[in-house]
Amino acid sequence: MKYNFGAGPSILPQEVFKQAAEAVLNFNNTGLSILEISHRAPEFEAVVDEILQLVKDLLNIPEGYSILLLQGGASLQFSMVPMNILAEGQTASYLDSGVWSSKAIKEAKLFGNVNIVASSKEANYTYVPRDYEIPADSAYFHVTSNNTIFGTELFDFPKTDVPIVSDMSSDIFSRVLNIADFGLIYAGAQKNMGPAGLTLVIVKDDLIGKSGRKLPSMLDYKIHADNKSLYNTPAVFSIYASLLNLRWLKAKGGVAQIEKENIAKSEALYAEIDRNPLFKGPCNVEDRSRMNVCFVMENPELDKPFLKFAQERGMVGIKGHRSVGGFRASIYNALPITAVHALIDVMQEFADNNA
Amino acid sequence: MKYNFGAGPSILPQEVFKQAAEAVLNFNNTGLSILEISHRAPEFEAVVDEILQLVKDLLNIPEGYSILLLQGGASLQFSMVPMNILAEGQTASYLDSGVWSSKAIKEAKLFGNVNIVASSKEANYTYVPRDYEIPADSAYFHVTSNNTIFGTELFDFPKTDVPIVSDMSSDIFSRVLNIADFGLIYAGAQKNMGPAGLTLVIVKDDLIGKSGRKLPSMLDYKIHADNKSLYNTPAVFSIYASLLNLRWLKAKGGVAQIEKENIAKSEALYAEIDRNPLFKGPCNVEDRSRMNVCFVMENPELDKPFLKFAQERGMVGIKGHRSVGGFRASIYNALPITAVHALIDVMQEFADNNA
Repeated sequence: MKYNFGAGPSILPQEVFKQAAEAVLNFNNTGLSILEISHRAPEFEAVVDEILQLVKDLLNIPEGYSILLLQGGASLQFSMVPMNILAEGQTASYLDSGVWSSKAIKEAKLFGNVNIVASSKEANYTYVPRDYEIPADSAYFHVTSNNTIFGTELFDFPKTDVPIVSDMSSDIFSRVLNIADFGLIYAGAQKNMGPAGLTLVIVKDDLIGKSGRKLPSMLDYKIHADNKSLYNTPAVFSIYASLLNLRWLKAKGGVAQIEKENIAKSEALYAEIDRNPLFKGPCNVEDRSRMNVCFVMENPELDKPFLKFAQERGMVGIKGHRSVGGFRASIYNALPITAVHALIDVMQEFADNNA
Repeated sequence: MKYNFGAGPSILPQEVFKQAAEAVLNFNNTGLSILEISHRAPEFEAVVDEILQLVKDLLNIPEGYSILLLQGGASLQFSMVPMNILAEGQTASYLDSGVWSSKAIKEAKLFGNVNIVASSKEANYTYVPRDYEIPADSAYFHVTSNNTIFGTELFDFPKTDVPIVSDMSSDIFSRVLNIADFGLIYAGAQKNMGPAGLTLVIVKDDLIGKSGRKLPSMLDYKIHADNKSLYNTPAVFSIYASLLNLRWLKAKGGVAQIEKENIAKSEALYAEIDRNPLFKGPCNVEDRSRMNVCFVMENPELDKPFLKFAQERGMVGIKGHRSVGGFRASIYNALPITAVHALIDVMQEFADNNA
């Protein structure tokens, strides 16, 4: 038995793997593989229609937003966001709460002025900064809602009239959001949405074209919005597998239900980290991520022995990112609470052996 | 029995579908799905190493070229090519041989001057222009080697000192090439390489960075080359399924062998088009594509009856593109000659019924 705590590409539900494998052999009884279906076939247009509707329903997206299915990951959005909504000479404000924030900042600087409202870099990003000012003339305010590497999450988005742009790659579909609070949300699919190769963008229509720049077609939100994400051949299989995953989420009760489970899973694991004398959490308690649970050992000499002990018991992907060290258990939507309990058992057994 | 003549995403070998489906359930006996494997896992790095080596071996790529596995399709390359290799104020020369050429031209104009050396647009792209001049000061010369929509193919690339850039989306891996003749080759994967969602770029190292522009990281060939296409999360599944397909091609005898089969398949089908009194080929005979065989009916009133007749006999994806009309049979590497014979039988049977 393997328990996949990988940070992404990450676990998806077993039934999604099963249905996706079936579609690779025979998609919807067409006698053809999903890998050889034309993206212009009515059967695939139905897939696109259904996934757009599911994203809209699951996230309760109001009218006035476009939902785009793109390629290139969040990393390409780091550039597409300023290209599309930051006009020449304007300033965008950014919160620097981790490696991905700082990469987004670096890319935005190519297209305009960047104002960093606050940074937790000096504390190795162990907390999410609070009490900063967002200048009212900012074209937008950018945040990373969940810092996959450092295990912090932003639970209270600031109140501001500036459009909020959020990279939600690692917490989209994990918690209830009020979409109307955001101007733009983007996410690489490969955590809670589906396999790698797909990028979700949810953008308020009045922001599209705001930069006034003449853009390459493939980097222009307007082109993709006007073409219902079928301007060119999309990532057909990743879209289909994501549809299967979002159907699973809906059948489970949707985002509100999964949020409850995510709270229960993360609380159980953090309780063990706080209780177990061998482990501690490096992050500010209030900012602890429900998706990526980072923990280190009181005695770093036990790092390797614990990793080996856990791997032998089926734990996959728990090594921490090199910039934090220690361990990271990513506990995305599809990871069952039994996996969290299995990890807690391993932590307890290891503590007993090393008392 | 279905025969998939779709223009792309298109048929892949049945054994690739079978192996890909198995990997969605259990990748290489890891106990994990290929959809939940980290792109930083040693098992996936081995996949990347193997596919890069296979591309190199199958196409006989000499030293001095980088092989990149990107996202966004050929459509994004329409912009990335000039961004990366056309400096401010320079001119690039383009051959306009079809819809995709003209889209590439449109995107390039955002980044510099475009010189169209010749165009067959006035003849609805039924031939590939010959006898044009490529100005020696062109930064590069761009061609579409196979025109998927119009069914023409460029068999003799011009001799020039200007670096040749070729969109080979629909004929890469179908015929032997002398890679040293090219500065850059790009291809959306979804014909002869693998599923949609992956883009192959083969670029001569001395062209990388030639434009001198400061580029977004994700649009910079240098970043991808320096990071062995793992700068960010790539299209994991599409890469793996493409690896399976290229292994199949290698086991079959490689590109030289498949080229022989492609010649045999296309000759058989064109022979029937020329022989059968009901059909004719709209393209210049010398330029007829071996990948996309376009044909129309002498009497267009028979279009619908023939389409219905063929579909009832399992022929999929043979409707012609709206800009040509009639029919198009795409006969990519994975389409067995038995499928071509089945289509010929259908054409003959229909002709007998309508004699």
